[in-house]
Amino acid sequence: MKNITILGAGRSATALIKYALKIAGEKGWNITVADSNLEMASKKVANHPNGRAVFLDANDTMERQNLLRQADLVISLLPPFMHPLVANDCVHLGRHLVNASYLSKELQQLDQVVREKGLTFMGEMGLDPGIDHMSAMQKIHEIRAKGGELTAFRSFTGGLIAPESDDNPWHYKFTWNPRNVVLAGQGTAQYLEEGMIKYIPYQRLFRRYNTIEVDGLGEYEVYANRDSLPYRELYDLQNIPNLLRGTIRVRGFCDAWNALAQIGLTDDTFTLSHTRNWTYSDWLESYCHKSHPASLKERIARLLGEDTGSDVMQKLEWLGLFSQERIPDIKDPTPAMVLEDLLLKKWSLKPDDKDMIIMQHQFEYRLNGETRKLTSTLVMKGTDEHDTAMARLVGLPLGIFSKILLEGNIQCPGVHIPVMPEVYEPVLAELANHGVAFMDREEVLAT
Amino acid sequence: MKNITILGAGRSATALIKYALKIAGEKGWNITVADSNLEMASKKVANHPNGRAVFLDANDTMERQNLLRQADLVISLLPPFMHPLVANDCVHLGRHLVNASYLSKELQQLDQVVREKGLTFMGEMGLDPGIDHMSAMQKIHEIRAKGGELTAFRSFTGGLIAPESDDNPWHYKFTWNPRNVVLAGQGTAQYLEEGMIKYIPYQRLFRRYNTIEVDGLGEYEVYANRDSLPYRELYDLQNIPNLLRGTIRVRGFCDAWNALAQIGLTDDTFTLSHTRNWTYSDWLESYCHKSHPASLKERIARLLGEDTGSDVMQKLEWLGLFSQERIPDIKDPTPAMVLEDLLLKKWSLKPDDKDMIIMQHQFEYRLNGETRKLTSTLVMKGTDEHDTAMARLVGLPLGIFSKILLEGNIQCPGVHIPVMPEVYEPVLAELANHGVAFMDREEVLAT
Repeated sequence: MKNITILGAGRSATALIKYALKIAGEKGWNITVADSNLEMASKKVANHPNGRAVFLDANDTMERQNLLRQADLVISLLPPFMHPLVANDCVHLGRHLVNASYLSKELQQLDQVVREKGLTFMGEMGLDPGIDHMSAMQKIHEIRAKGGELTAFRSFTGGLIAPESDDNPWHYKFTWNPRNVVLAGQGTAQYLEEGMIKYIPYQRLFRRYNTIEVDGLGEYEVYANRDSLPYRELYDLQNIPNLLRGTIRVRGFCDAWNALAQIGLTDDTFTLSHTRNWTYSDWLESYCHKSHPASLKERIARLLGEDTGSDVMQKLEWLGLFSQERIPDIKDPTPAMVLEDLLLKKWSLKPDDKDMIIMQHQFEYRLNGETRKLTSTLVMKGTDEHDTAMARLVGLPLGIFSKILLEGNIQCPGVHIPVMPEVYEPVLAELANHGVAFMDREEVLAT
Repeated sequence: MKNITILGAGRSATALIKYALKIAGEKGWNITVADSNLEMASKKVANHPNGRAVFLDANDTMERQNLLRQADLVISLLPPFMHPLVANDCVHLGRHLVNASYLSKELQQLDQVVREKGLTFMGEMGLDPGIDHMSAMQKIHEIRAKGGELTAFRSFTGGLIAPESDDNPWHYKFTWNPRNVVLAGQGTAQYLEEGMIKYIPYQRLFRRYNTIEVDGLGEYEVYANRDSLPYRELYDLQNIPNLLRGTIRVRGFCDAWNALAQIGLTDDTFTLSHTRNWTYSDWLESYCHKSHPASLKERIARLLGEDTGSDVMQKLEWLGLFSQERIPDIKDPTPAMVLEDLLLKKWSLKPDDKDMIIMQHQFEYRLNGETRKLTSTLVMKGTDEHDTAMARLVGLPLGIFSKILLEGNIQCPGVHIPVMPEVYEPVLAELANHGVAFMDREEVLAT
């Protein structure tokens, strides 16, 4: 009888816990769900005969190690800074470890000892990172197997709102970490184009978007993620001349987000000296010359090079940025914190709202004298504000991989991310059984 | 017989050493100039009978304290991070300390012990900070003394090149720390307008310049310095509705510098992945789409919203940014480092070049029912690349204050910056004897 311990029972754990309990029921395994909020953990285990919820203060080493000692495999949804602690426990206790976070240097450095102990630590086993790696590597290996030479790889992911739940002019709601959305793209984007490294600084990022076509849904905007260059090595694409990873947004989003960035509202590098008793209108006023006869809206429009009635200006107005509503008290508020607080009120999911994940890979390659393009697209919608596509696409890979590993059907000792066929093939196959399937479209660009 | 020890004999020390030796000769004092470059120190002392040059490794505590023990007063031109060390020595040894750097928290915290020992530590006793404080406070106190109520204080300083030495289309050369020029304004400018705090984020700073008029020289551009708000407290202007400190540049500079910033060339937050064997043209190419038929210059012009023949584009071209010249090897180069290296070649002083300092304060106040404006302007030119106005205006206040303090004509125990009449009056009076004089213009704005 196998024991899986899941650390963390928050929003992102729901689909994972559901899947794990179902598998445990079929196989007679046990699932332990540990969280500092015992009530939440209990609710998600829901008296399942193969599950139990326990209280865990993850900072309590003794308590944590006592819990992990009882597991065969640990799935950690704890915040990334906790991972080294849990990883060291797992080395010490000889337990497998699976998570959905970016692999840190600390974890990578454990590779040899993990390998020697015959353990598997699998990181980046969620959606992005996770499904992106697996689905892209499968296609890359297929193209190479038939003799194709890759000339371009572009990959885009977006956590969006389904069209049927889209009821605001931004056509966007928060389906994941709002702070990451507000700070998205800060720094300088780096990618490859025709063999050259290209840079896009933040102040031009949201003006430099492209578009992609998604069958059945139409056109979306994509902007470059911060650093695409490491994917040369991660995906064994050392000599590829074109490489770009990006984020998907609905048409019109980038221009409007660019307006927020240009005004200065996404800045997280300094503290506003004074927001007490300020209205949103006062806040915007602080970015304009006051001694000017035009209205605030006219001055903001001029600053942005927009007409006062433009789509962008309408989106800003809808957010309430020109309103007399008071800004809530926020401790040491940066502009980004004030904006996040405002957006949380405007962009939250309603109970029946369905989120929607789009992931699209574009591969260009030469084969038999032809230049071909393969477009591989995943679209998945959630059911409601709790059963989101986002949580499902993070939770299912974690659960599926853990199951296959415990069944003994994968042998991959060491610290990994899921880029090897022996990992991605069985995981993608079972994901497809859960409706997580990419639709492919292939075309000849030139002969 | 008094002993003054000057720590540091670099570029900024020349005028100070010259002044100190002259005073020492008149008064029979001794001047010790200490530097890790003994040759440079000796050259500047030039066998003056009242001077001596000594070698000092400022990190060697024993050596440093032995030296300072022989001094009555220490003038430190060491880098700011060394100041706490020297300050603690001076407390311990009971020596006065004068420098031209911004007063750090570490120094401020010594106030009580310095005061108890009857010592004076004077910081910010150079040009900016230094002469700016003294000249502004003198006017502020004068206006208050006659019953005026200040409604606006704006103060601008620029380290520029004299018109007769201006031979490039930027009308600018480096007369001080080049790195500070390249990074100028990064962060968010904060100031007061009509009683409201105003913010200008970096991406809009060089578009939001104003102009000032300098008698005999014409119009200059001014952009806001990073944070004007602390001057409310420093200058006792707690209730002033308009407060702005800024930097002076020649007409046309801000638009062109804005172009460098918009492209991304002033960014110091990330390392370019690849500049080996790159030309400047390759570097600019990395900020553009390559897959576009237009020339690099056309694409950069479009990115900036400029015509290819505009003044701004001509300035970029003059810098060699579109050239096939190779970028030198720089370790872990940020864009700002590559730009600084390029500008150093283009903007360096020739042997006979004269620099020029402009400082202008604008005071608006109400008096007897009138709104008046007092504009107080200092213009000073250097003699050549060594005897710069910059070095003179940093060195003279240090030397003059030190002399007056040692003469016993100022009593101000504690840690200070020069905002008090007992300090600024005698220093400004002697500065005027050295040709450092503000020209005032007063006008009535409204009655």
